[in-house]
Amino acid sequence: MTEIASLGEFGLIDRLTDGIELANQSSLKGVGDDAAVLEYHETEVLVTTDLLLEGVHFDLTYVPLKHLGYKSAVVNFSDVYAMNGTPRQITVSLGISKRFTVEHIEALYSGIRHACEIYGVDLVGGDTTSSRQGLVISVTCIGDAPKDKIVYRNGAKDTDLICVSGDLGAAYMGLQLLEREKIASVGQKDFIPKFEGKEYLIERQLKPEARKDIIAELDQAGIKPTAMMDISDGLSSELLHICKQSHTGCRIYEDRIPIDYQTAVMAEELGMNLVTAALNGGEDYELLFTVPLHDHEKVSKLPGVKVIGHITKESLGCAMITRDNTEIELKAQGWNPLAQK
Amino acid sequence: MTEIASLGEFGLIDRLTDGIELANQSSLKGVGDDAAVLEYHETEVLVTTDLLLEGVHFDLTYVPLKHLGYKSAVVNFSDVYAMNGTPRQITVSLGISKRFTVEHIEALYSGIRHACEIYGVDLVGGDTTSSRQGLVISVTCIGDAPKDKIVYRNGAKDTDLICVSGDLGAAYMGLQLLEREKIASVGQKDFIPKFEGKEYLIERQLKPEARKDIIAELDQAGIKPTAMMDISDGLSSELLHICKQSHTGCRIYEDRIPIDYQTAVMAEELGMNLVTAALNGGEDYELLFTVPLHDHEKVSKLPGVKVIGHITKESLGCAMITRDNTEIELKAQGWNPLAQK
Repeated sequence: MTEIASLGEFGLIDRLTDGIELANQSSLKGVGDDAAVLEYHETEVLVTTDLLLEGVHFDLTYVPLKHLGYKSAVVNFSDVYAMNGTPRQITVSLGISKRFTVEHIEALYSGIRHACEIYGVDLVGGDTTSSRQGLVISVTCIGDAPKDKIVYRNGAKDTDLICVSGDLGAAYMGLQLLEREKIASVGQKDFIPKFEGKEYLIERQLKPEARKDIIAELDQAGIKPTAMMDISDGLSSELLHICKQSHTGCRIYEDRIPIDYQTAVMAEELGMNLVTAALNGGEDYELLFTVPLHDHEKVSKLPGVKVIGHITKESLGCAMITRDNTEIELKAQGWNPLAQK
Repeated sequence: MTEIASLGEFGLIDRLTDGIELANQSSLKGVGDDAAVLEYHETEVLVTTDLLLEGVHFDLTYVPLKHLGYKSAVVNFSDVYAMNGTPRQITVSLGISKRFTVEHIEALYSGIRHACEIYGVDLVGGDTTSSRQGLVISVTCIGDAPKDKIVYRNGAKDTDLICVSGDLGAAYMGLQLLEREKIASVGQKDFIPKFEGKEYLIERQLKPEARKDIIAELDQAGIKPTAMMDISDGLSSELLHICKQSHTGCRIYEDRIPIDYQTAVMAEELGMNLVTAALNGGEDYELLFTVPLHDHEKVSKLPGVKVIGHITKESLGCAMITRDNTEIELKAQGWNPLAQK
């Protein structure tokens, strides 16, 4: 194992960024100057950023560094797709505490670089420093979209259909499973965690994907959503953002919320309410979007997209209709990163 | 004092970003969606990022939060100016530990917003989360420049003149002074630090400015530097970056290095080598740049700019000529953020 101090900041950066090639035309100059230089003469520029802190956003006892790197990049790509854009560049800043070696940081970076390759994104800059505390990861993603393609949160209209991609709650159940096995492992030698039949949940938590494919499907189908977000804090919370910014209400139907079989089994096993997990779980990185009613036929044909309800007038509020036909008001019970633990 | 948990993430963001207006034409959409939307159809986009961690980059026992916010923004602007560009937008991500109240974060933000006003930059996004450790600040700055105006680090040529703005070493001496008074204050009630006659040093450390004025001067004088950087890690370290990337050597002259009177007095008082402080001190955020020899007359007339040496062939290496005419090899002894303390 190589001590980071033996390389110094610039030695470490050289090693981590060795062999990086720029794939996007808009990346004129990457790592190695005071700033990266990008060219966006035809399209608008999208900028999003996420801060991930050890002990708050991730637990290295069960998150492999390569997966963490991959996820750190992908969650930012997801924000750009949620604007109906294409991610093009990222910068990665790391705060590294003493217990990490060069090989650890290389593993983290290999995940970031792998995500960049898969999604066609260039790593163009960052900052690397020591941390007195745990690992700090700050990623900024730059993307682009033609002006008339950008989808904001505030464009939903009364009668629009509410759609989600994929399924919900699995990432949250994956986290519960990882936490359970972590507790079970305490003090045990050669502990083997019980993940059989629950691989999907683990993958959703540790290695989420951004829905680049759904953005492409919508484009091919000639559908431009009226509002869109990615689901990072939970369906309820995100839907309330769209309704607040669009000055609308909404109705969603419990029996339409897409939930995977493994998620349901896990909720049963843990004695948790399945719908609550799907509504408030978060970290699914699926897309939540609204489309005009006249796109109903088109959107119904899209694989991996489900219509779960519709937008209403603001005065009607935001609610879910349960299986027994009761209206329950939607509340933002999603993950609150500022809650005092 | 208001507990942060009582507002939640979105309540806090609403409060911090209340009344923000977008001043730049390129800022189409700021805070409040998955990503900010920017328009750069005529110019290139510059992106730079800095990560500041409590206990590594700042010590809140003597750094007021408002100053810290100001400095966090300005050091990023400085990187954009160092490309001969204009900073336009920033995103600010904060990791906040339990001991901070809403009022603390408002003070930090007021410094960031003040810097944005002074430099004409828009705050367009960020991320806010809790931290298990200390305060984490990650700032990304987006700026622009016409393609033919951008100055990289790799353009210095043999015989070019080496110039610096302002004076060097004061920020480092300010830090020494603050550390000295911190130690002196331990266990003392109503301690009054001895800053008299050394206000300049304190200001250079706590509230540095980016040299927007020098960029404007150069432009008005019709000078385009061949290479440029801002001095954040120390003159030696930065000069070695320019020479390495430009495949050149350099000679600078000890008696030409601009040093303020207060810096010299403080070095004397602390028994430190003054030139070492000026060469390796860092955090001056002055500009280091090279210009063609034929610009000698023009550059000599610029207020606040000093010619300190010249670029040579690579084979001659990088050295300083001392007052007694000895050549000393330049080494990167600047601040190493990854050194194990």
